[in-house]
Amino acid sequence: MGKNMLICQSGGPTAVINASLVGAYQRAIQAEEIEEIYGGYNGIIGVLREEFIDLKKQDMIIEELQFTPSSALGSCRYRLAGDFKHKDYQRIFQVFTAHNIGYFFYNGGNDSMDTAMKLDKYAKKIGYEIKIIGIPKTIDNDLEGTDNCPGYGSAARYINTCILESAFDCYTYSLDTIMLMEVMGRHSGWLAASSVLALHNNEHILDLIYLPEISFTIDKFLSQVKDRFKEKKIIFIVVSEGLRDEKGEYFLAEQALSSDQFGHSRLGGVSLFLQDVLEENICKRVKVVNPGILQRCATHCASGTDLNAAYWVGYKAVEFALKGNSGYMVGIRRISNKPYQWNIELVSLDKVASREKKFPLEWIVSEGNYVTREAIDYIEPLIVGNVNAPVWKGLPRYHTLKKEFIPHKLPLYKVEDNC
Amino acid sequence: MGKNMLICQSGGPTAVINASLVGAYQRAIQAEEIEEIYGGYNGIIGVLREEFIDLKKQDMIIEELQFTPSSALGSCRYRLAGDFKHKDYQRIFQVFTAHNIGYFFYNGGNDSMDTAMKLDKYAKKIGYEIKIIGIPKTIDNDLEGTDNCPGYGSAARYINTCILESAFDCYTYSLDTIMLMEVMGRHSGWLAASSVLALHNNEHILDLIYLPEISFTIDKFLSQVKDRFKEKKIIFIVVSEGLRDEKGEYFLAEQALSSDQFGHSRLGGVSLFLQDVLEENICKRVKVVNPGILQRCATHCASGTDLNAAYWVGYKAVEFALKGNSGYMVGIRRISNKPYQWNIELVSLDKVASREKKFPLEWIVSEGNYVTREAIDYIEPLIVGNVNAPVWKGLPRYHTLKKEFIPHKLPLYKVEDNC
Repeated sequence: MGKNMLICQSGGPTAVINASLVGAYQRAIQAEEIEEIYGGYNGIIGVLREEFIDLKKQDMIIEELQFTPSSALGSCRYRLAGDFKHKDYQRIFQVFTAHNIGYFFYNGGNDSMDTAMKLDKYAKKIGYEIKIIGIPKTIDNDLEGTDNCPGYGSAARYINTCILESAFDCYTYSLDTIMLMEVMGRHSGWLAASSVLALHNNEHILDLIYLPEISFTIDKFLSQVKDRFKEKKIIFIVVSEGLRDEKGEYFLAEQALSSDQFGHSRLGGVSLFLQDVLEENICKRVKVVNPGILQRCATHCASGTDLNAAYWVGYKAVEFALKGNSGYMVGIRRISNKPYQWNIELVSLDKVASREKKFPLEWIVSEGNYVTREAIDYIEPLIVGNVNAPVWKGLPRYHTLKKEFIPHKLPLYKVEDNC
Repeated sequence: MGKNMLICQSGGPTAVINASLVGAYQRAIQAEEIEEIYGGYNGIIGVLREEFIDLKKQDMIIEELQFTPSSALGSCRYRLAGDFKHKDYQRIFQVFTAHNIGYFFYNGGNDSMDTAMKLDKYAKKIGYEIKIIGIPKTIDNDLEGTDNCPGYGSAARYINTCILESAFDCYTYSLDTIMLMEVMGRHSGWLAASSVLALHNNEHILDLIYLPEISFTIDKFLSQVKDRFKEKKIIFIVVSEGLRDEKGEYFLAEQALSSDQFGHSRLGGVSLFLQDVLEENICKRVKVVNPGILQRCATHCASGTDLNAAYWVGYKAVEFALKGNSGYMVGIRRISNKPYQWNIELVSLDKVASREKKFPLEWIVSEGNYVTREAIDYIEPLIVGNVNAPVWKGLPRYHTLKKEFIPHKLPLYKVEDNC
């Protein structure tokens, strides 16, 4: 008799995270070794709480979920303790045992890979037979061990679409205008850098890009914007939400109202602050575009390449587990840019967990306000390809799973978390 | 020998305004009565400045412009004087005469219809032989004489897509959340009301909608949000940027920094202000979504029905002019909701110019915080239909016209405007 499989999603939403769920599901239903396919509700919290959704018993066609944004299984930002003596570990493996879980997949960013790594190590320590594989996803693209992270390409496509359309909005009037767009990315400039792609008449629309990797000062900013504004009546600027000052602190750190559990500062307001500064010093017409959460859930604008990668990392994760691998993340290895070719390989979770892949400094021009040809060549293929997702009454047809949990086998367990 | 035709675009951008240009162009090239087809650059200002683009001499295929957002001919918000003695009138008809203009089409909102009406009256007064027809467009949907305004359906589709995707973003975590979205519409709630359409599990996602038509007070708002929040952990609210207080003044009028030439106040910050209020009083997790200018230029998400209407009002405007009509706007008359059927008819510009069609009060529920079934039935068909627009390197392929003007025949003319 086979074992059961459990898959969870964790961390922030992306436009294509459910494609990984569908990929994993489609590989799993072909496997004789796998009996039941469960989804844990709200990531590792659903494991602690023993809240499992039976994916084989949904009314819907699971396949359609691949065109639905955000985690269909819910998410969390819960971090497992560093100490294996913490009661969470015992609980998780009681739950695994009770439900005969022999395959566990955790789909998320670097914090999630930390969870997967710890569970794999704990399982080996106590001799529990399980295959644990991490599946990458994050719009931030900051995971080590993978060429790119599913979710990034779609966010990049959406952001560039916003830039393109905002630019055409600005072209409408022959007025001096600065368009300022704020792009997500707390710690790294991957997403802000991606905004370079949008073209008008074969020239890049963006004039200036400010990334967290380069220290930001108002004086330098104003001087660079002024220079560019002298040449052109209408200019376009992208700033990362994660801009840092010369001390490496968040620019506008006083606005960082609180910190979440992982020590991330909540950010906001960079673009509104800079709008005031620009309007006072350079140009009265400053248009701010801040897509906010829209950039991480815009499946209607998803990249086909990205959705495809999301599907296959899910599919291959299960396949690698079936071959007996555990303690790895599935990573994308790029073979070539043109044509864009890649395959999927295993990367030890030790090399991924809780690390952040920074945007390469050598891909930033010496003035610190733009990216190089290498960066463009890297990002370009990731936004290509349409997704012909189902539409209903003029809107994307998105689905949710029934939130019916399989029967509990263990006593309730209290989780200290707000998810 | 025939006469020449001139077409201009005016007012704010929409996602489909160029489809009207394409429709007009395609009818005009079939007409023996029409020799040259000119586009005036930046609306009536381009007429005053004698800045005409020869639409027959573009390298590009004009047809592709229908998938490009914002006015390909540029725009303006210039208002003609009420007094026909103003030198602008003399100048405009000198320009018309010099370029043998016998057909003039003005594509815009209610201010633009005022311009078209005045020029028609002036022409008749001085006995200048010209056919003048207004072509409606505005995301605000506030033009009299037409069932709906091209541009509105596409903005509504985009806004609902944003709501749908933001909702799925909020569903990711099982956290108490208020999602607050700010929607354009200075004077009327048409666009804010349209946000009702997005569904999840066949239920409307939006819980509360606040329109400029109903006076807004913080106390009432907080009380209604509190009630709804008690029932549901996650709620969705749309507020119009044009909310008014009990005196009929803009809510947050102190933030209305300046007024434009037509007396419109510049607005902003309603949602950010309300976010603070909600976070202090009801829920710590308030997500603000403010698509800003994106909602009027998102051709990548355009409604097929809307694009089609935009095309045909342009096409029929030329056809009506060829039949000898002048002093009219082409309006859409709805024949039925299900199936959605409509035709195009002439409406006297007198009945349209400078008026605003308010959102019907009887389509607002008695509590003042939602819209009725009639409103839903009205809006629903306008967002339906995909647009399979060309894509290049993963992004929509948008075009601009060459800004080469035909030779001037008159002395320069100074226009007091910043367009």
